[in-house]
Amino acid sequence: MMIVDIVKKHEPITSEEIAAKLNITRAALRPDLSILTMAGILEARPRVGYFYAGKNTKSLLAEKIRSIKVSDIKAVPVVIKEETSVYDAIVTLFLEDVGTLFVVQEDGSLCGVVSRKDLLKIAMGNADIRQIPVSVIMTRMPNLVTVTMEESAFDAARKIVEHQVDALPVVKPEEFEGKVKYKVVGKVTKTTITRLFVELGRG
Amino acid sequence: MMIVDIVKKHEPITSEEIAAKLNITRAALRPDLSILTMAGILEARPRVGYFYAGKNTKSLLAEKIRSIKVSDIKAVPVVIKEETSVYDAIVTLFLEDVGTLFVVQEDGSLCGVVSRKDLLKIAMGNADIRQIPVSVIMTRMPNLVTVTMEESAFDAARKIVEHQVDALPVVKPEEFEGKVKYKVVGKVTKTTITRLFVELGRG
Repeated sequence: MMIVDIVKKHEPITSEEIAAKLNITRAALRPDLSILTMAGILEARPRVGYFYAGKNTKSLLAEKIRSIKVSDIKAVPVVIKEETSVYDAIVTLFLEDVGTLFVVQEDGSLCGVVSRKDLLKIAMGNADIRQIPVSVIMTRMPNLVTVTMEESAFDAARKIVEHQVDALPVVKPEEFEGKVKYKVVGKVTKTTITRLFVELGRG
Repeated sequence: MMIVDIVKKHEPITSEEIAAKLNITRAALRPDLSILTMAGILEARPRVGYFYAGKNTKSLLAEKIRSIKVSDIKAVPVVIKEETSVYDAIVTLFLEDVGTLFVVQEDGSLCGVVSRKDLLKIAMGNADIRQIPVSVIMTRMPNLVTVTMEESAFDAARKIVEHQVDALPVVKPEEFEGKVKYKVVGKVTKTTITRLFVELGRG
């Protein structure tokens, strides 16, 4: 496509300049330019000229992936109280068939996260897991990695990979008596991302 | 774009028919048709006519996802022997920082899979985990869900979701003395898929 090649090489370039290079009239060029612009291959900026805007598949896909919000994919979180014993936490994990439990205070605000890995570590020891509360082994605020509804599925997946965690609580910050508390309103896990991947692959 | 609308409505349609509908000559239509075809918006099939081929981002993304092979994304599997004790398996799990162990026979062929969940279940009981071999608690062939190098990342993710497992062994079938054995050559886990998702989102 000669027009596109010319624009790529000389951007920004006016329609007059393109017409001159192709040795055709602007009138003859106009329909091609308008099709290329409508197809998203060229971008026309008034009083500046034409730019090459043709996105490749890769960046289109990245844009699509980044457009998915946490609110579109979040799953239902399983929460327990700080006083819950490690034993009861493990039972909950199996009953609910989840990999991570979120620990909340009396007012429902997030204070910790317990993973299958944390529970396995304590369970293989000789500790009396019926006597130990999860608060002893959980990862605590403010060391928790969280995500909000407005962030993207991409942000959530990136945090999971970078912080090497299985699950993120989806939180809603709420100010209460001058202190910020985080209400748990969902979760995003590796399972959530894998499901999303399958859904995207189905098209 | 009138041409595209006409093709969408009447596909397949010849250039003569499009020209007639627009009340222009075929010569005037030709440059537009060729641009739309080169841009991948229309598809020209010789002796049949024009089709609308404009793929939306969704189907492009699905196509891309389905084009990624297991061989492009597989991770390194951690394998143990059948005689390994549950205790040693848990230690290996922590040392290698993985969620699933693959159990192999003397000849290296796959015979079982042990997950963090399997290990947690036995560790919370009162069993002597130093005495029990993993072969007692592992999921056994032929009940294992596996994937091959030639399958797609999408196939692997679909299997993970449908069979509710954390990881799949990537296997290479080998015939030995009339019996098929499966050599473990990699793994695909929810982590692998989450990493791939992040990579696709980076563009």
